[in-house]
Amino acid sequence: MKALALLAWLIPLVGLSAPAMAQFQKAEDAVKYRKSVMTVLGNHFGRIGAMANGRVPFDAQVAADNAALVETLSKLPFVAFMEGTDKGETRAKPDIWTDPAKFKQSAEKMQTEVAKLSAAARTGSLDSVKAAFGAAGESCKACHDAFRKD
Amino acid sequence: MKALALLAWLIPLVGLSAPAMAQFQKAEDAVKYRKSVMTVLGNHFGRIGAMANGRVPFDAQVAADNAALVETLSKLPFVAFMEGTDKGETRAKPDIWTDPAKFKQSAEKMQTEVAKLSAAARTGSLDSVKAAFGAAGESCKACHDAFRKD
Repeated sequence: MKALALLAWLIPLVGLSAPAMAQFQKAEDAVKYRKSVMTVLGNHFGRIGAMANGRVPFDAQVAADNAALVETLSKLPFVAFMEGTDKGETRAKPDIWTDPAKFKQSAEKMQTEVAKLSAAARTGSLDSVKAAFGAAGESCKACHDAFRKD
Repeated sequence: MKALALLAWLIPLVGLSAPAMAQFQKAEDAVKYRKSVMTVLGNHFGRIGAMANGRVPFDAQVAADNAALVETLSKLPFVAFMEGTDKGETRAKPDIWTDPAKFKQSAEKMQTEVAKLSAAARTGSLDSVKAAFGAAGESCKACHDAFRKD
């Protein structure tokens, strides 16, 4: 039942979330893909963070562009956590496949917070960006703590 | 002058193309970032190719969503080819830095063809997607042949 619930989640809701089999020929392709998405996502999230934390001057357009990209990227990696992708060059914990409901919930929490960050950035308010960035960062950390090895 | 021309190209026109120094703390971060972008881009470009080549049924929405994502991603990697990122785990040829005008031209050709592919996909016509996919693929290959080691 758990595997079935996860499978249902992997079925495409939009064009970007394809059936995993069609998108990845091999398990290692899926692992490389999801790690790549996270690398790009983390870079652009970090650029918002640099503004939220005052390390670089706030530029509302830069924040909005980066947050929109992060929101787009947040939808991509989870299709790549299909069965058989728990091996090789990955820090994915087995819990992803043994507790798919919690994994799904954690991923969706991140997606929700990132969408809020994007909405906040579009307002052009640094204070809103700071608050939403903090909440989004916590959702990243919570999922990593639970499902990613150190 | 060549270095200056490349530098001018690296200066942000939109929020996503940030000054390289702010975006990457170390050269290897830039290399990892640009390779990750290419991995994600290639995956979604390949999904359009699977439809263009008849390996999977054509779905206009899937094609349009993937092409829009490819168009977004096509703008990202070039800021990461700054000075000092020709070393380490990279297949980048020295020509990127010795002939920046040609590299810029090749990259812009790809960006143009990918934008055309996205426009073609929005029409919902498989024939248009096939033609635009072929041209975009040629622009990828031309740049890889010239600037990427085997």
